[in-house]
Amino acid sequence: MALKAVLPDLALSVPDSRRPLWTWLYEELRTAILEGRLRRGRRLPSTRQLAEHYGIARGTVVTVFEQLHAEGYLEGKVGAGTFVSQRLPDDYLTPARRARVASNPRGRQRTLSDFAQRLGSAPEGTLPPPRAFRPEPSLDDFPIDTWAQVSSRCLRRATRNLLSDSDSRGYRPLRQAVAEYLGAARGLRCEPEQVVIVSGIQHGLDLTIRLLLNAGDPVCLEDPCHPIVAAMFRILPAKLIPVIVDEQGLDVGAAERQRCRPKLIYVTPAHQYPLGRTMSVSRRLALLDWARRSGAWVFEDDYDSEYRYAGRPIPALQGFDAGRSVIFCGSFSKVLLPGLRLGYLVAPPELVDKFAAARFITDRHSSVLDQATMCEFLAGGHFGRHIRRMRELYGSRLASLRDALQTKLAGVLDLEDTEAGILTVGWLGRGLRASAVAHSAAAMNVETVPLERFAVQARLPEGLILGFAPYHARQIREGVGRLAQAVDLCRRKRA
Amino acid sequence: MALKAVLPDLALSVPDSRRPLWTWLYEELRTAILEGRLRRGRRLPSTRQLAEHYGIARGTVVTVFEQLHAEGYLEGKVGAGTFVSQRLPDDYLTPARRARVASNPRGRQRTLSDFAQRLGSAPEGTLPPPRAFRPEPSLDDFPIDTWAQVSSRCLRRATRNLLSDSDSRGYRPLRQAVAEYLGAARGLRCEPEQVVIVSGIQHGLDLTIRLLLNAGDPVCLEDPCHPIVAAMFRILPAKLIPVIVDEQGLDVGAAERQRCRPKLIYVTPAHQYPLGRTMSVSRRLALLDWARRSGAWVFEDDYDSEYRYAGRPIPALQGFDAGRSVIFCGSFSKVLLPGLRLGYLVAPPELVDKFAAARFITDRHSSVLDQATMCEFLAGGHFGRHIRRMRELYGSRLASLRDALQTKLAGVLDLEDTEAGILTVGWLGRGLRASAVAHSAAAMNVETVPLERFAVQARLPEGLILGFAPYHARQIREGVGRLAQAVDLCRRKRA
Repeated sequence: MALKAVLPDLALSVPDSRRPLWTWLYEELRTAILEGRLRRGRRLPSTRQLAEHYGIARGTVVTVFEQLHAEGYLEGKVGAGTFVSQRLPDDYLTPARRARVASNPRGRQRTLSDFAQRLGSAPEGTLPPPRAFRPEPSLDDFPIDTWAQVSSRCLRRATRNLLSDSDSRGYRPLRQAVAEYLGAARGLRCEPEQVVIVSGIQHGLDLTIRLLLNAGDPVCLEDPCHPIVAAMFRILPAKLIPVIVDEQGLDVGAAERQRCRPKLIYVTPAHQYPLGRTMSVSRRLALLDWARRSGAWVFEDDYDSEYRYAGRPIPALQGFDAGRSVIFCGSFSKVLLPGLRLGYLVAPPELVDKFAAARFITDRHSSVLDQATMCEFLAGGHFGRHIRRMRELYGSRLASLRDALQTKLAGVLDLEDTEAGILTVGWLGRGLRASAVAHSAAAMNVETVPLERFAVQARLPEGLILGFAPYHARQIREGVGRLAQAVDLCRRKRA
Repeated sequence: MALKAVLPDLALSVPDSRRPLWTWLYEELRTAILEGRLRRGRRLPSTRQLAEHYGIARGTVVTVFEQLHAEGYLEGKVGAGTFVSQRLPDDYLTPARRARVASNPRGRQRTLSDFAQRLGSAPEGTLPPPRAFRPEPSLDDFPIDTWAQVSSRCLRRATRNLLSDSDSRGYRPLRQAVAEYLGAARGLRCEPEQVVIVSGIQHGLDLTIRLLLNAGDPVCLEDPCHPIVAAMFRILPAKLIPVIVDEQGLDVGAAERQRCRPKLIYVTPAHQYPLGRTMSVSRRLALLDWARRSGAWVFEDDYDSEYRYAGRPIPALQGFDAGRSVIFCGSFSKVLLPGLRLGYLVAPPELVDKFAAARFITDRHSSVLDQATMCEFLAGGHFGRHIRRMRELYGSRLASLRDALQTKLAGVLDLEDTEAGILTVGWLGRGLRASAVAHSAAAMNVETVPLERFAVQARLPEGLILGFAPYHARQIREGVGRLAQAVDLCRRKRA
């Protein structure tokens, strides 16, 4: 047979009925080429020969040849027939499996941006279940069934309008509900038009940084401060101006004495992170005044302000500023579920369009389905109920922590007078080092973070960060008991 | 009475039982101050006097004075009693209501970043319902009830682990499912570890730009190209190197002749946006080879590749590259619901940690609840079923469009040989200008976009973008009928 003479080693399987003839022939030829049975540069039989040999239409063979040609497996030389290509597409796979991926051995080096080079790394995977005193909200108490019901109802009722809503500012009814909620609960003065739905405070801060800062711009921030916030500014890189925090919050006088002109001032007035102190009204006024004179924007991080256990909440900084310089930002995710990515940003009117444009060009908008569910959850009173329940629960747990420490560690670990949030600071007595105590505690399955980890450049007193929200009174008592043992151990080591 | 002598104009309301005495007194005094009944600088009666007058505990009055003092409403002068402050917190509200917000009259000008200054604006609100031939997916055909069921089941079964999952790379089971899906459907060679869940292709591109490009870096992109993509590069600003697209896709030879060394090459190989052409295998190989020699990364935008109506899909560029230079990105949102914000990015192994870190520092991660639902939707076969249904439906609608144009506008508006996606290009016959036809068509309630809007710098032939996915055969025939009238009108105007 003529074909065998041309291609003695081309043993194609018998066509099967599961695959179209076209697919069968294509795959058989490609496999033969890849396995080297049809060697590079080898001339193929003509389409007529192949068609006759396998008893299929010549058009089918022509189509397969064209496809293999298009894919780079075959080469045609005019007047000379069809050949297996000298360079096969799959050549591009083999070296990559062997070579170090980064190296690009025969090419130029690929580079990263300055941003990428300054990036740290992300924690991988999921944390183990919380243990006292890791600062976390209490997930067990989130009304997941209610959320599921509300979400399901929203989805079933979803109109075309909802499904196609893509306003970068956010789902309009949610923005309305947020403006009302913030006006009532946080003393904000804002119209729904000023509200931009974001995926959380960090996202709001990222957008703010992109919109308001260039590399090298001076940024004032509290010291201590959340390490991720400091990292976000460092990556730009901004020029960091850390300012100490006293009993009234960020020390504006100390900041002014530095004679810097920040472009942005980042603060946590509701309760300072991590010290928990509330910024006094006079300090708020001084801050706004300084911001005005400096031409600085102010980013007000209102994290966890929903959980206030004592004292009268002072209206948000934004309420005193009426939308001239303050970007106010809060989160639903932190209060409800970290896995939910929804927060809100209230921008000065002149910045709203910029935030919307930044959102539009970077990731369009937040999930409309989640926004609609959140809107219902808020409007249906579920959010308020959850907050009130948690406020009572967390408040009692904070009291348990205070009692337990008073009983077991009075004068050794004294709690800051925290009135809000899900964490507090315990100040260590003379001679005790927070890092040593945290280290000993970890060995006893108690989690605390030394305050010094939150320092930007300040030398802080020895303190431990203690979360209390997800822990029952018994867990808290046990945790304090073990903490007392850890303290003992540290003392004995020193002695 | 002594009090009346000191404060004849201080008429406080009678305490009511609804409010604690403390709150009542605080609010009455604050209101009196704000309304000017208690004027600035005015001396207040002593706490003893007030307590006696209203028959309340002196401690309560002291507390209220302290609070008002803390909030800036009262000032104490040692030995001289308590006075209403000269500067009230609420002063900060009044001028803002009058003055232009941006002006910061007595302070320094607040500035925006370069990024913000280069930003365009975001479209506001929601589009009216689609009309032929606006390019959109068919929302009416999305199985919203199935999605709601799957979502509800996920929520009810949600474990603590799920609720607290916060891996910036994405929900692990979804990354696994995506890797499998892409391997089978798109010929990708990737491990789940390379998959990063993002909120859509645009978000993936934004992260890529931040990680790989500095301002001024040269970027090669197809011409024509999606205007938002070009805008994203311009905002950086990158140095744009637009390269023409021929029948085989981006013309690599033309690019090489420009002797540029791009840091990034942005392409849509599955079907070029908006021309719809599929990049040939030989062109893919040439592109990868050029990228290797140039030290360029390649961003493969695989939008809508799920919808292929004819021809054999060519494996993704990434499959030929095996994770050395290609960042592959696709979206669930576009295929399912634009309101859902979920997509995936497959990064070269050496870049995965950078993507995760960028996500972690900018907005943490995508909604875990949505990710879990998507995972179930994929694993339960719902995604595949929806794709198959839509492929058939959209394919028949594309055929309807082709037929209708053949009948009414043959030689006048000839369709590009589109085999995938939800839009196609109609090429206009001699003497017809796309902008004029689109303008006339709009007056007849037919929506088309002139191809020239997608040009970066190329002079393109006269063409119209036509979407077909959400329109019934009748709507398509009617739309083509009115388009024919619009063409007639243009011709008569020219004559």
